[in-house]
Amino acid sequence: MTQFKFSERVPADGTDAVGAILQAAADPKIISFAGGLPAPELFPVKEMKAAVDKVFEEHGQEAMQYGAAKGVTALREVIQQHVKEKENVDSELDNVLVTTGSEQVLDLVGKAFVDPGDTVLVEQPTYLCALDVFRSYGANFASVEMDEDGMKMDALEEALKANPNTKLIYTVPNFQNPTGRTMTEERRKQLAELAEKYDVYILEDNPYGEIRFVGEHVPAVKAFDKSGHVLYMSTFSKTLAPGFRLGWLVADEDVVNKLTVLKQSADLHTDNLAQFAVAQFFADNDVDAHVKEISNLYGKRKDLMLEGIKKYFPEGVKYTDPEGGMFLWVEVPGVDDTVELFKECLEHNVAFVPGDPFFASEVQPGAFRLNYSNMKEDQIEVGLKRLGAALTAAVNK
Amino acid sequence: MTQFKFSERVPADGTDAVGAILQAAADPKIISFAGGLPAPELFPVKEMKAAVDKVFEEHGQEAMQYGAAKGVTALREVIQQHVKEKENVDSELDNVLVTTGSEQVLDLVGKAFVDPGDTVLVEQPTYLCALDVFRSYGANFASVEMDEDGMKMDALEEALKANPNTKLIYTVPNFQNPTGRTMTEERRKQLAELAEKYDVYILEDNPYGEIRFVGEHVPAVKAFDKSGHVLYMSTFSKTLAPGFRLGWLVADEDVVNKLTVLKQSADLHTDNLAQFAVAQFFADNDVDAHVKEISNLYGKRKDLMLEGIKKYFPEGVKYTDPEGGMFLWVEVPGVDDTVELFKECLEHNVAFVPGDPFFASEVQPGAFRLNYSNMKEDQIEVGLKRLGAALTAAVNK
Repeated sequence: MTQFKFSERVPADGTDAVGAILQAAADPKIISFAGGLPAPELFPVKEMKAAVDKVFEEHGQEAMQYGAAKGVTALREVIQQHVKEKENVDSELDNVLVTTGSEQVLDLVGKAFVDPGDTVLVEQPTYLCALDVFRSYGANFASVEMDEDGMKMDALEEALKANPNTKLIYTVPNFQNPTGRTMTEERRKQLAELAEKYDVYILEDNPYGEIRFVGEHVPAVKAFDKSGHVLYMSTFSKTLAPGFRLGWLVADEDVVNKLTVLKQSADLHTDNLAQFAVAQFFADNDVDAHVKEISNLYGKRKDLMLEGIKKYFPEGVKYTDPEGGMFLWVEVPGVDDTVELFKECLEHNVAFVPGDPFFASEVQPGAFRLNYSNMKEDQIEVGLKRLGAALTAAVNK
Repeated sequence: MTQFKFSERVPADGTDAVGAILQAAADPKIISFAGGLPAPELFPVKEMKAAVDKVFEEHGQEAMQYGAAKGVTALREVIQQHVKEKENVDSELDNVLVTTGSEQVLDLVGKAFVDPGDTVLVEQPTYLCALDVFRSYGANFASVEMDEDGMKMDALEEALKANPNTKLIYTVPNFQNPTGRTMTEERRKQLAELAEKYDVYILEDNPYGEIRFVGEHVPAVKAFDKSGHVLYMSTFSKTLAPGFRLGWLVADEDVVNKLTVLKQSADLHTDNLAQFAVAQFFADNDVDAHVKEISNLYGKRKDLMLEGIKKYFPEGVKYTDPEGGMFLWVEVPGVDDTVELFKECLEHNVAFVPGDPFFASEVQPGAFRLNYSNMKEDQIEVGLKRLGAALTAAVNK
């Protein structure tokens, strides 16, 4: 057999820790809080079918033909209107790029901005796939401490001073993955100011912002951007259909144009059928009502999570109480190795994602992420009972 | 305004020559042979709508949910069967990766194999987007001379000896873009042997192979691959719907696994709706009959092209006579600068793609590419008359 000579970019075998975790957790007898999927029972299957039917009737040939790298105009108009309505962000059509899921925004931004040795400042902890992408372009990371109100701005400014090579600040300001935390309005203003002051870019990743089940909406960092330093990204994956792979970037036209060139080399353009379908879906449906339904369900599940945690987890365990999104974050004092804990939990037929891969540098011990968006109510109860038993055993070891 | 500091990877402004050409040719009064689109009037809109309807009825939630990075199993099975049936290539499911168009295969193979300074051997001329992608990963190119029977094997072996740093040989063996030429079976055998002998990989790109309107099918290079050195790629873009962005790779499991990791960082996975739809389309339709219809139409248009060329082009002009695919290649003795010629042709309201960007290194002067797949019959006649007038003027200058 041929021994293939891969490039330096290819990660070594066995480094996909999260893949291994999800695979271990896939055993049907395990109740897994490890995933990150939306609740499929709320997918608007019937309405999307109607939208797609209309697309075939009205734009059949166009949806099946090659399209523009920036995306289908009708969808870009939907996005433009959407960011105005939801986030009070003004944009022209030329500021909008449709991508193959928001993962592609991460990839294109990494490719367009990160030279090897550049520093990317990230929240501590942060979304692990973003770390993987930026790492693949040779980024160094510096982590910025968080509290319940998101990234700490004094810590951020220190990091900016300590890392003059900083190119990008990556943040998930709403219901962050993995912690579920939300950054305050005051900090968002400061964040935008710091980016301008230090001439670094902010990649504001907002996949969950609309899934708010309690509290007040906080404006996007982009809404405070006076200088074009904020690149705003989001997706239809959490509100409509992750399977369609539709994300987007709203940014300065110069950034959009450069990323469009890179996108052409990546996949020419994003699937036209899905783009036309979602544009049609917006025209024909009350999307806000649909998102409200999702938020209500996830809110109910989050409440059940907190009830279960209080009932079954050993004393001293800390946890976040998100106002939206899909995840909460647990810290277990006295337990250092959550990868080891993960293995013990598998024996109790319950799973989570250990905290380690969410940290760019130093790992905060004893933390893990729980998903609730895709957990049925009875699973939550039984799963947390199992998890509580495993945690009690671990704490008392 | 912010002056953005992009990475070294971002191409400089004004380097997108082809983009500029296509834009100039988009004026509706211009008859443009510059494009590369399939004929949309043959898209199976009604049948695809029926397939998608069935997908929503039978797999609605699944098609809308996140999916596997390697692709939807039903589609991978279709591909596996397809490469067996059409190319006599044996594969297991683990050898098949679905991608977001075949452009993504180019990108992932470039990323996985090409370290800066590695040499990629390409046909002279070759598909320009492949050059862009490999260049973005730091490839050096060496070009291998072609004749009417494709890449010359003695020239290839010389290039392999002269470039010990060669990682990859890129070939479009059937109805090549831009020349329309097809490599003989004998050369394909030799090509597979040379790859094994010199331990380099072949990326065999076969988007057009099924669109044959005359002559006999030639087996894929992959069919002669004994050592796993051949990575075989194709797409549904020329036979079903380019807008759906569905390509694929068939290769050694080790290659597929590594590319899957990279694909996860690029876009997580390819749109599920399009994947389910095409799998369903194959289950419910006679795809061979549909492809035959495409081939017949393109063959008719190619014949009209040759008639027009003979009728209107000045004497001494050379052109290929493809047995399939979408393009033919014209060489005009006495004309060196086809970019200049392009500008003159715009004044005659007719356009093509100048040969220059198809050459990795030294440019063969006086050549250009003509598309016929998306040219209506009356446009061919009028367009070639205009082009002939422009060529006659240029030759007599």
